[in-house]
Amino acid sequence: MLNEHILDQIKNGSAIRALFEDGKIMAAEFGRENVYDFSLGNPCTPTPTAVRDAMIDELEHDDPLALHGYMSNAGFDDVRAAVAQSLNARFGTAFDGSNIMMTVGAGGALNCVFKTLLNPGDDALTFAPYFTEYDNYFRNYGVTLTKVAPNPPTFEPNLEAFEQALSPTTKLVLVNTPNNPTGVVYSEDIIERMAAILTKKAAEFGTSIYLVSDEPYRELAYDGVEVPYMTKYYRNTLVCYSWSKSLSLPGERIGYVVMPDELDDADTIKMGSAIANRLLGYVNAPSLQQRAVARCLDCKTDLAYYDRNRRAIYDALTSYGFTCVKPQGAFYMTVKSPVPDDKQFCADAKAEHILLVPMAGFGCPGWARLAYCTSYETIERSLPAFKRLAEKYFG
Amino acid sequence: MLNEHILDQIKNGSAIRALFEDGKIMAAEFGRENVYDFSLGNPCTPTPTAVRDAMIDELEHDDPLALHGYMSNAGFDDVRAAVAQSLNARFGTAFDGSNIMMTVGAGGALNCVFKTLLNPGDDALTFAPYFTEYDNYFRNYGVTLTKVAPNPPTFEPNLEAFEQALSPTTKLVLVNTPNNPTGVVYSEDIIERMAAILTKKAAEFGTSIYLVSDEPYRELAYDGVEVPYMTKYYRNTLVCYSWSKSLSLPGERIGYVVMPDELDDADTIKMGSAIANRLLGYVNAPSLQQRAVARCLDCKTDLAYYDRNRRAIYDALTSYGFTCVKPQGAFYMTVKSPVPDDKQFCADAKAEHILLVPMAGFGCPGWARLAYCTSYETIERSLPAFKRLAEKYFG
Repeated sequence: MLNEHILDQIKNGSAIRALFEDGKIMAAEFGRENVYDFSLGNPCTPTPTAVRDAMIDELEHDDPLALHGYMSNAGFDDVRAAVAQSLNARFGTAFDGSNIMMTVGAGGALNCVFKTLLNPGDDALTFAPYFTEYDNYFRNYGVTLTKVAPNPPTFEPNLEAFEQALSPTTKLVLVNTPNNPTGVVYSEDIIERMAAILTKKAAEFGTSIYLVSDEPYRELAYDGVEVPYMTKYYRNTLVCYSWSKSLSLPGERIGYVVMPDELDDADTIKMGSAIANRLLGYVNAPSLQQRAVARCLDCKTDLAYYDRNRRAIYDALTSYGFTCVKPQGAFYMTVKSPVPDDKQFCADAKAEHILLVPMAGFGCPGWARLAYCTSYETIERSLPAFKRLAEKYFG
Repeated sequence: MLNEHILDQIKNGSAIRALFEDGKIMAAEFGRENVYDFSLGNPCTPTPTAVRDAMIDELEHDDPLALHGYMSNAGFDDVRAAVAQSLNARFGTAFDGSNIMMTVGAGGALNCVFKTLLNPGDDALTFAPYFTEYDNYFRNYGVTLTKVAPNPPTFEPNLEAFEQALSPTTKLVLVNTPNNPTGVVYSEDIIERMAAILTKKAAEFGTSIYLVSDEPYRELAYDGVEVPYMTKYYRNTLVCYSWSKSLSLPGERIGYVVMPDELDDADTIKMGSAIANRLLGYVNAPSLQQRAVARCLDCKTDLAYYDRNRRAIYDALTSYGFTCVKPQGAFYMTVKSPVPDDKQFCADAKAEHILLVPMAGFGCPGWARLAYCTSYETIERSLPAFKRLAEKYFG
């Protein structure tokens, strides 16, 4: 009898990853240009040249033993300090290197935070729709994730339902803004009200409720929308970040976690998270990537590219009759399934060589996720297929 | 109440990592050249130039989206195939890419294997002394690690005690050869007898007992000693490997796991391990490093450098009166504590600016581990300090 969690996953699978594998098979059969794969959040804007140059420069000029060697589990001290300074300059925070731990992507950041904060039987809370991997990450630590029901069509968090869902056993609230899968960016007003609820409820229960903000899409916001920095609104906030999207480095597994001094048990959490990095087998964030990102903290991806995709796909799909939520951030758009079963909708789309992810698995049945981090040409070429799909439903 | 496992670790700590941090503080206080840090298994032979050149070439010529992007959780298909071919050429095995999963170092490999194979309450077995992190890795999955008592002064596995320790609940046996901390390499005779015991006991119990071979030190063997390839001796064997030591890349977190087709439930394990890579938050092995190692499968570290260190430190310490086990592999040597308490011995050594790790934490009280992966100059400079230490005990 192999591991139950793994066996469950083999049975129920990651719809996203399965589609990614399907996409590869379909591309081989029909030609890559004839498959419109909107399944995976794999960045399409090339890594900025400065990142490549920084890596090459490190490889050419650094002592290889230092460059590729072990460091403290929390990361290179100077890299952590540089990240803190960059955050302070951008957001008016007052972090130093001790508040930062470098991680194996946001996946590593979230797992280290969960391992540090949670015991089996604790409760965690998030808002549906949500990144399905969260269920697995919490299950790793024997913690059940409760979801506040989705709030379509705006998909802004339902704060009344949130307040009711908080309980004395709620140890952690996880938010993700800009959001996967909706593309919604939480406004300052929403964050202030959420923080007030958390502060009130933690006082009422006499507990610590940690807010964990998962922010791999922070740099991807459109139309001048601001993405408020969470630690400024609620004291007990940790931030998990990744350069996967902002510098198009998802395969390299590089990110960090921010642990402000204002946290309850801040010293234990700072020490504990580095231990978690070790215990969970990550050991440390990949060393060359740490050096590279520290030199590229002001680099930006080609946001205009995603923005053009966003506008093109939104305008086209709505003109064909689909109901979509115009995303303010990230590179996902939600499309309302024209039939009650979003799996049927995605199967119909697949017949047109369009790969979408049913959002039932994101805790939001009746909708599908479209990841528009593709080439613009893919979007252009996909439009006749979307039009045929629309005609099937809307005549 | 933060996580209990983490709180235990803060209290009891990793002696090795604590010494590593102490070493940095002492180096700042007394000067790096006056601290003889034998605490950590951090390779001292530079990464082969070919590895650097491979990375630079990839960065200069690869499509950055492909180079730094997501791939299947198991790794790049061509990299996996190249690793399989290399193993086949070296060891006469018959693997293909499907038998290989690329991992975030050996830590990632072990955690993915444990997550896939084990359920809470299962039993695992290893031989003391053993790499202490194993306790933590098993604890991550609710599994208790039973240790077969150490067998000094040879430190070869005690196979009679091993046979008695196997039980119907034993799901996994973990071996590590060349061994950390002893430097012992298991001979073909020992492996054959161990395999016979496993086969006999699994048949007797009607269970599957998986043998997991943790082999980060495979390439480090001296005096022409052979390191037999485990899968050839016992059918239910998985191998965890890392390039941390063989190519001096410990900070980069790159390794793999081998899952032969002959395993019980091989298909489920191959599929499940890739799912584990995702669920545990690793997602995939760092992508640039995958590309680099695939191009350097025949590269070798400077084994002669470690060998010179090994002979120098063994000859000197034994001539001063210390009892040491001459290592055949890895870059560790065991030193018998001249006093019953190995922590006292290591504290006395620290007073001479020598950093050794007490082996009580490795399940072997009365001994200390000396990691001779330092510069040769460090070894030379340390000898007067070792001599003073010896005089303290032996007059």
